[in-house]
Amino acid sequence: MTDADRQLELIRQNAEVFLGEDELKKRIAAGKKLRVKLGVDPTRPDLTFGHMVVFNKLRQFQDLGHTAVLVIGDFTTRIGDPSGRSTARPILSEEEINENAKTYLDQAFKILDKEKTEVRHNSEWFGKWSMIDTLRLARQMTVARMLERDDFAKRYASKTPISIVEFLYPLLQGRDSVELQSDIEIGGTDQLFNNLVGRQLQKDAGLPEQAVLTMPLLVGLDGARKMSKSYDNYIALNESAKEMFGKIMSISDETMWTYYALLLCKTPAEITAMKAQHPMEMKKQLATALTAKFHGEAAGKYEREQFENVFSKGKIRDDIPEFRWGELVAAGAESAALTDILAATKLFPSKKEIRRLVEQGAVKMNDEKISDPALKISASDAAKTLVIQAGKRTFLKVVA
Amino acid sequence: MTDADRQLELIRQNAEVFLGEDELKKRIAAGKKLRVKLGVDPTRPDLTFGHMVVFNKLRQFQDLGHTAVLVIGDFTTRIGDPSGRSTARPILSEEEINENAKTYLDQAFKILDKEKTEVRHNSEWFGKWSMIDTLRLARQMTVARMLERDDFAKRYASKTPISIVEFLYPLLQGRDSVELQSDIEIGGTDQLFNNLVGRQLQKDAGLPEQAVLTMPLLVGLDGARKMSKSYDNYIALNESAKEMFGKIMSISDETMWTYYALLLCKTPAEITAMKAQHPMEMKKQLATALTAKFHGEAAGKYEREQFENVFSKGKIRDDIPEFRWGELVAAGAESAALTDILAATKLFPSKKEIRRLVEQGAVKMNDEKISDPALKISASDAAKTLVIQAGKRTFLKVVA
Repeated sequence: MTDADRQLELIRQNAEVFLGEDELKKRIAAGKKLRVKLGVDPTRPDLTFGHMVVFNKLRQFQDLGHTAVLVIGDFTTRIGDPSGRSTARPILSEEEINENAKTYLDQAFKILDKEKTEVRHNSEWFGKWSMIDTLRLARQMTVARMLERDDFAKRYASKTPISIVEFLYPLLQGRDSVELQSDIEIGGTDQLFNNLVGRQLQKDAGLPEQAVLTMPLLVGLDGARKMSKSYDNYIALNESAKEMFGKIMSISDETMWTYYALLLCKTPAEITAMKAQHPMEMKKQLATALTAKFHGEAAGKYEREQFENVFSKGKIRDDIPEFRWGELVAAGAESAALTDILAATKLFPSKKEIRRLVEQGAVKMNDEKISDPALKISASDAAKTLVIQAGKRTFLKVVA
Repeated sequence: MTDADRQLELIRQNAEVFLGEDELKKRIAAGKKLRVKLGVDPTRPDLTFGHMVVFNKLRQFQDLGHTAVLVIGDFTTRIGDPSGRSTARPILSEEEINENAKTYLDQAFKILDKEKTEVRHNSEWFGKWSMIDTLRLARQMTVARMLERDDFAKRYASKTPISIVEFLYPLLQGRDSVELQSDIEIGGTDQLFNNLVGRQLQKDAGLPEQAVLTMPLLVGLDGARKMSKSYDNYIALNESAKEMFGKIMSISDETMWTYYALLLCKTPAEITAMKAQHPMEMKKQLATALTAKFHGEAAGKYEREQFENVFSKGKIRDDIPEFRWGELVAAGAESAALTDILAATKLFPSKKEIRRLVEQGAVKMNDEKISDPALKISASDAAKTLVIQAGKRTFLKVVA
C-alpha cells in the first residue's frame, strides 16, 4: 500500500460522493501539496456541530500535510445561497457580513490548524469585476442545467419564485475554484451541484479540474432532520460547556454512533468495539470529549461530574445559582408566593411559564413536587435553605 | 375631438399591442413632450425595410412634436439578444459594434428627423456598472417569469440550450427605460416581453411607467415569412436604386398593400381607394416612392422608366454594361465560344452557371434564344453589335 493509497483511504472516510479520485491520487503520488477548498458563507454569526463535519475533513487534509483554503464567501453572501432552501436568503449589509466572518473564523480555528490555513475572501476578486465580466461568466451555464439542481427543480415545479440572481450563485462559487486553483473542494451533500460547477469552470479555463468530495449532513438532536438553526435541533460551537454536554446527553443511541463517526472521526472498527460497552457510558464519553474539544479537558471532566451528580446520583450540581431571601422579596415581607419568588430570580422567561411548569408538576422544592402555583413561602422556610428545581435542568437555591 | 385624441389616433395606426394608453393620453393632454424610446442592436452592419416599420412610427412621434430617444444597444449587443431566435447570437467585438452602430445611424436618419433625435448608447451607464450592480438587477426578475417568454419556453421545451446570460438581456434592456425615463417604448412584436420588463423596472424604481407599443413584423419578399437576412427575402436600406426597385416589383399584390400601410403609412381609407386602380400601376408607384425615399426623386423616376423599358416595352435598359471584342477575346482570334465570351465579362459566378443558363434557354442574343453552349461567335458578328440577355435581369452589349 503506497502513501497515496493510505491518504486516499483516510480522505474517503465518511465521504458521501468522491469524484475525480484517480486524478487526485496522481497529484498526491507526484508529491503535490494539495489545495483543499472549503467555502463558507457568513450568513449567520455562529457555527453549529453541523459545520464541524466538513471542518474535520479539512483538518484531516491539513494533518496529511496539505493546504486548507478556507473561502469566506463575503461577496457571494451579498446575494444569498438558496442551496437546500425554499426561498432566497435576505441580503446582509457589509458590516454584518464582516462581523459574521470574524466570528466564523474564531470558531473554525477551534478545529482547523490556523498555521496551515489560507483564508481568502471572494470579494478579493469579485469586488473588482465589472458588469461585462459578470455577463461573460453567465454565458458559461445553461438554464436547463441549473434547473436540474434538486432544490431549483422543486421550487420551479411548486411555482415558488426563483430569482435570476440565484442562478448566478453557483457560477460565482465555481469561479472561486478557478481563482484559487483548488485541487479538491469539500462540502456538504447539498453543495455537490455547486462544486461540480467549479470543476466545469476550471476545465473551461484550461486548468486541471478539482476533485469533489461531499460529506453527509449531520442529523440534529432530534435524530430526524438535519442539524439546523431553523429546526432548533442544533448545538452551536460557542455554546457553554454545560449546555453542550447536556444537549449531547439528550441524543438517541443511534444518533450517538453517527456523532462518533462524523464529529470524532472514529472508524467503523472503533465504533463496533464501542458498541460492546454500555451506551450510557459511551454517551458520557462522547459528551466529555466534545465538550473538552471546545472548552478544554477540565471543563469536559467537570461537566461529566456535574451531570452524574444530578442525573445518575440524584444530587444537585455544585454550581447552581444561589439567591438571598432579601434579593427576591420586598423588604420586611414575612412571606411571598412561590411564583413571585421564582419570577424575581429572572431565570424564567415569564410568570406564565412558571405557572405552566408548576401545573405540569415539573417544579420541586427540596425534592417535593409542588402543585399549587399560589403556594406561599415564609421567611422562616427560607432560613432552612430551599433547593428548587423547575423543569429538567434549572436548579436554584434560596437562602436566608 | 381633442388634440390628445387626434395624436392617439395616429399613434394607434398599425399598432399591434398598445398598453398604457390612458396614462399616455394624460401626459399628452398635460402638454408633456414625450420621450419615445426605440432600442436597436447593432448586431449587423445594415438595416432592412423591416426596421423601417418602427422607424416610421418613431418619425410619426417626432412629427407630433415629441422626442425620439434612439438607444444603440452597444453594451447589450456584447451579450446577444435571443428574441425570436433559437440560438444565442455570437459575441461581437467592440470595433464591429461601433462600426455597425455608425452605419445604423446613417440609415436611420434617412427616415428620422436627426434634429429631433436623442441618440444614446447603453454603454454610457452599463459601462460603469460593477458586478454587484448587475446582481442587484438580476434579483428583480424570476426564472419562471422569464420562461414564460415564448421563445424561451419553446427552446426550453425542445431542450435547445439557453445561456443564463440570455435571461439577463431583457433586464438590461428594461433598465435602459429607467435610465432614460421613457414615456413610451416602441418595438416589433417580438419585443413585447422585453418592453414590459422596462415598465416593471420603472415601477420598481418608483418612476412613472412607460406605455408599450408594438408594431407588426414586416413580411418579406416571399410574402410568407418575416423579412430577415436569414431568409434572404429582404431589401436593405442601402441597396442600389435598381435592386430596390426591382425587388419591390417582385412582391405579390397582397404584400403590396401591407407595404403601403407599414412603409408608406397609408391609412386603410387611402388603401381602399388605391385598390380601385390597376395593381401593376400601384406597384410601380410603391416602388417609385420607396426608391425615391432612399435615392431621391430623380432616381425613383429613372428606375421606373428603365423597368418599363425592359419589362413593359420589351426594350433594354439604357445603362447596360458594354464590352469591346478585344477585351473579351485573345488578341488576333477570329472567333470564340459564347460561354468563354460571357465568362470573360466577369458578370457570372462561373462557367458552369453560364452553361446552365444556356441549357435552360435563358440566354438570348439579339432577341434570339441560344441553345448550344458551344456556339462560336465571330469577330464580324461582334462588329454589328451583339445584345446578350442572360437570365431575367442581366444584360450586356459586345461591340467591335
